[in-house]
Amino acid sequence: VVYVLQLLGVVAFAASGVVASRSKRPDVVGAVILAFVTALGGGVIRDAILGRPAQSFRDDAFLVAIVVGALLAMALPRVLHRMTPTLRVADAFGLGLFNATGTVIALESGEVSAAFAVLLGAATGAGGGILRDVLCGEMPALLRPGEVYITACLAGGAAGLVVLALGGSMASVSAVIAAVTIGLRLAAIRFGWRFAPLEGVV
Amino acid sequence: VVYVLQLLGVVAFAASGVVASRSKRPDVVGAVILAFVTALGGGVIRDAILGRPAQSFRDDAFLVAIVVGALLAMALPRVLHRMTPTLRVADAFGLGLFNATGTVIALESGEVSAAFAVLLGAATGAGGGILRDVLCGEMPALLRPGEVYITACLAGGAAGLVVLALGGSMASVSAVIAAVTIGLRLAAIRFGWRFAPLEGVV
Amino acid sequence: VVYVLQLLGVVAFAASGVVASRSKRPDVVGAVILAFVTALGGGVIRDAILGRPAQSFRDDAFLVAIVVGALLAMALPRVLHRMTPTLRVADAFGLGLFNATGTVIALESGEVSAAFAVLLGAATGAGGGILRDVLCGEMPALLRPGEVYITACLAGGAAGLVVLALGGSMASVSAVIAAVTIGLRLAAIRFGWRFAPLEGVV
Repeated sequence: VVYVLQLLGVVAFAASGVVASRSKRPDVVGAVILAFVTALGGGVIRDAILGRPAQSFRDDAFLVAIVVGALLAMALPRVLHRMTPTLRVADAFGLGLFNATGTVIALESGEVSAAFAVLLGAATGAGGGILRDVLCGEMPALLRPGEVYITACLAGGAAGLVVLALGGSMASVSAVIAAVTIGLRLAAIRFGWRFAPLEGVV
Repeated sequence: VVYVLQLLGVVAFAASGVVASRSKRPDVVGAVILAFVTALGGGVIRDAILGRPAQSFRDDAFLVAIVVGALLAMALPRVLHRMTPTLRVADAFGLGLFNATGTVIALESGEVSAAFAVLLGAATGAGGGILRDVLCGEMPALLRPGEVYITACLAGGAAGLVVLALGGSMASVSAVIAAVTIGLRLAAIRFGWRFAPLEGVV
Repeated sequence: VVYVLQLLGVVAFAASGVVASRSKRPDVVGAVILAFVTALGGGVIRDAILGRPAQSFRDDAFLVAIVVGALLAMALPRVLHRMTPTLRVADAFGLGLFNATGTVIALESGEVSAAFAVLLGAATGAGGGILRDVLCGEMPALLRPGEVYITACLAGGAAGLVVLALGGSMASVSAVIAAVTIGLRLAAIRFGWRFAPLEGVV
């Protein structure tokens, strides 16, 4: 079940990668590459920091999911425009799953501290979108004042560490991370929670 | 012979890195760094994804080749401007060699699937130029509508997988990848093959 | 003592990361992420190239130092503005220490040649600032005509290789690299040494 959800998350990330980069007018190959980077870039960053080969590069199903997501976004731009709320909800589920698997992989690797494992979970979830914006020559939207996104990952990871400290299994840690991340993200979309720019805060 | 060709490819990539970044007005150290990134960046990305140390960092001959290419491009800007067709042909040979060696290294590593090995070959060939443009704060030219470049890598890699499936040796796989990539790239330069922007296609 | 100096260097790098990115108007989470990238990005690049897990991700003290540096820079923007010379001197010491430890780690890894080890030392010192500027969608200031910074790292590393060739211990190599780098950097700040753009040189 988790594997199928992961594949759906990859489809959603790939489609959102194409939609987000459309204003930069890539060609077809460029658009598929940006979909690829959006979907797998976060996991690649995590694995490079853990000093091990990129796990997603073993499984061609991810490649198929990316091409499906990218082609959907390219073939149905009008439908996707109307489906934007649907795409955002799918993206929220992808974010929660990527954050949960990334944090648990980092915790189980034994290579990083628990606090840094939470950061690697957030990097797994948000790193692909950041890398895509960098490849479009722009400051990543996730670093600018705006929606609650990385913060949802960090809060989910912190909740996971609490479960771990209370003696919970890795499966329950993973489930709590995903649930808190997805819940916060959906609430942020529903209620329009946003961050102010830095000048407005300090 | 392959080793000498690789070094010439590094010289060509380093020179093209300096030429491509001239409009961004780096200083001398910045220009050499951009030449370095253009020449070795693709292989470094491939090795990081394979989870192993960067192979090119063992061999000082690559460093000498980069400095030679960068100094040539800086010392002879007028000559290089007239030599642009020559530089593009040299770049095409470098691309084919990098794509072939990158794909074969990824196939032999056992860490990635065959389809992802083709992508890592393309990353070895085109990753340096992409990284250089990112370091110049621009959307990489290779992702925008334009010349057939990454596509030539992917077609060469696909041809290599066909040879592999037919029972060919790694040497023949490598030769076919290089030949198809270089042939397609030279044909694209000769006949002006270009990709349309995404809006024109869908 | 070296460890405490390293932590102070992380604080200085994190604070300078927030100060340097203020004009891009990130939100609070974005500013802390940019501080994080400025402080640890260089070491992460070095470790990825050496094919091993990021060493800094084992030690939560680095995380505390980053948050302290980032909060200082956010809470005291006016004080920091007046303290800019102080921040630049602290940054120079951080640069020398990062360059020395990065070069020695690369030399001792046995994965790269001595000349490339010097480059990895410079990447450890300057890579974080370069990555921060890339994440702000800008051409890195360190690649543009301007202050002597990467050059100070390379000169320090070269001096370290001389000491190594003369039979010096790793401790003395490290001390010479740090001393030469910090000395050159402070002299460049004091006397206003700058590089001309490329067109002015060739």
